[in-house]
Amino acid sequence: MSADAKPLSQATRSEGIRRRRGRLRDTRITLSHGGGGKAMRDLIDDVFVAGFDNALLASLDDQARISLAELAACGDRLAFTTDSYVVDPLFFPGSDIGALAVNGTVNDLAVGGARPLFLSCSVILEEGLEVATLRRVVRSMQAAAAAAGVAVVTGDTKVVPRGSADKLFINTAGIGVIRAGLELDPSAVRVGDVILVNGLLGDHGAAVLNARGDLALESDIASDCQALNGLIDTLIEACPAVRCLRDATRGGVATVLNEFALACELCLHIDEHALPIREEVKGLCEILGLDPLYLANEGKLVAVVPADGAEAALAAMRSHPAGREAVRIGTVCATPPATVVMATLFGGERIVDMLVGEQLPRIC
Amino acid sequence: MSADAKPLSQATRSEGIRRRRGRLRDTRITLSHGGGGKAMRDLIDDVFVAGFDNALLASLDDQARISLAELAACGDRLAFTTDSYVVDPLFFPGSDIGALAVNGTVNDLAVGGARPLFLSCSVILEEGLEVATLRRVVRSMQAAAAAAGVAVVTGDTKVVPRGSADKLFINTAGIGVIRAGLELDPSAVRVGDVILVNGLLGDHGAAVLNARGDLALESDIASDCQALNGLIDTLIEACPAVRCLRDATRGGVATVLNEFALACELCLHIDEHALPIREEVKGLCEILGLDPLYLANEGKLVAVVPADGAEAALAAMRSHPAGREAVRIGTVCATPPATVVMATLFGGERIVDMLVGEQLPRIC
Repeated sequence: MSADAKPLSQATRSEGIRRRRGRLRDTRITLSHGGGGKAMRDLIDDVFVAGFDNALLASLDDQARISLAELAACGDRLAFTTDSYVVDPLFFPGSDIGALAVNGTVNDLAVGGARPLFLSCSVILEEGLEVATLRRVVRSMQAAAAAAGVAVVTGDTKVVPRGSADKLFINTAGIGVIRAGLELDPSAVRVGDVILVNGLLGDHGAAVLNARGDLALESDIASDCQALNGLIDTLIEACPAVRCLRDATRGGVATVLNEFALACELCLHIDEHALPIREEVKGLCEILGLDPLYLANEGKLVAVVPADGAEAALAAMRSHPAGREAVRIGTVCATPPATVVMATLFGGERIVDMLVGEQLPRIC
Repeated sequence: MSADAKPLSQATRSEGIRRRRGRLRDTRITLSHGGGGKAMRDLIDDVFVAGFDNALLASLDDQARISLAELAACGDRLAFTTDSYVVDPLFFPGSDIGALAVNGTVNDLAVGGARPLFLSCSVILEEGLEVATLRRVVRSMQAAAAAAGVAVVTGDTKVVPRGSADKLFINTAGIGVIRAGLELDPSAVRVGDVILVNGLLGDHGAAVLNARGDLALESDIASDCQALNGLIDTLIEACPAVRCLRDATRGGVATVLNEFALACELCLHIDEHALPIREEVKGLCEILGLDPLYLANEGKLVAVVPADGAEAALAAMRSHPAGREAVRIGTVCATPPATVVMATLFGGERIVDMLVGEQLPRIC
């Protein structure tokens, strides 16, 4: 029996039921939007289900269900990751907390060699948040998800009283599938390998810092927030022997290099001349006493590739919009082990250590 | 070559590297614990990796990797869910935010018919939180995970300045696998079906409310926080034709019944006489003008089963520690459609609607 053939009584009943799932008319978030009742249902329907428009999310269920056979067609291992996002302010040049929450988790999956597929979205809202702000963030999440080729398929909403949280926090968890045979692992890095980055460093950290407005600096630095899965597909195709990848978020490139050096117990040797950093970012760092190597990025990765694949890898990255300004920043040596060393602009060498202490709170 | 046969130089190098991953010595959380550098690494190693002790989590990677073949051995569909937990206070009679964050997500997976397998754990910490408090919460999470048979395999840590969040919020996402052939779906509910719950209602809401101390009531009501996956295994084995299950958390049993009624477009008819509610919980609700049907539970589910399977289902639930006090609370009728009706203690009938407004903020 087709839907059209449904007896009128039943059609009418469905209409009546559909009307119960109303539109959200409030302009500000109240505690009732987290109470589990009608107001929360309206918020979820009107802001999240409508915003993330997809069949998996549309059910009333508290879980998304995904065919394991379909996942197995993409690879042999499931990748599972999570991040919470607390960036302040919510909107900043180049991006916002919504796009960040999607791209950050997409990138955590992609740098492990996974094809990102599905995300969750769980929000903690402060009572009094403008609904228009939330709608704007969800639109940004959906645009980022569409651009990265992922779907937001499950979620949760909590509201806390005014003063118990600052406006809006988002958690996304992500699942993806790692292609069969691909093993990205920093302990596989060997002496002679080449270290690459896909473009300008430190833009995200500088943009957020600048957007806080404490500095009264005139600058048009925009966050580099972007999904890296397309770039990584291109890179792996051109250089299947890539050793490892990692996105350089909190703690910056210096932290990623140190994590790699620790894992392979070799020396990652970089050249300060080669580091792609905007003059404005350098200037901002000088004023504030920050080191751009530790500034957060949200669309930049460090790749280590075998020397004989480096040219192909670099060319592939430059062929992709997310890697136009990819460059080689260093090589891997034997000693000193488990250390990052930088040849400085002044002709000397210095150890680039793990970040001790805090540069910038709430940068992501 | 065995580990013992390693040349001394290499052994020494590993020792040196191992020493770099130090113990956390701070007594309070500072912003540097969220900065992406050494302090954050120490916190993650010493509190989370040590606390959740398992091989998948032990890597430095930002993602857990799970064999799809192993998942496929458990069923045919992946279930994916998430919840954030903002309960206030963090510790309350019977449970705490840590056990809640594990059991809540385990239960969201289990009521959809999934075997819960893996969780993520993402925390937002307020600067100044005592590290001992965090350790206690992580111990509680690990104990709950072990009891439920799941592993915490990936995570994230953010720190926000004092006043930007209240102490500690936790997000867990969960993945599980749904057994082949099992379809739990409230739209499958039919006239004549029987409605069951697995025990006393409202204890969690009452315990948290009481723990806030605003009431100065003497009471020993404890939260019912517990994992339901074992109970659900037992129930499904005894009554494979079970129509649907849902845990009655925020919004209570009344909200679950309304969601079911909306999905099947039938009348869920319950009997107030049959509702298992402690006298202390009823008393607390009377004082505060609350309705126990809307009080949150964290270890209670509503099950709808075909009439001819009801006795077997009830007996199975009662045979399990999480269902000792399981009872039948009502049946499914044709009219009024998409409505929950309760036969009251006074011999009348009343409609039990979706919760409008908010009963209790930060109950979970």
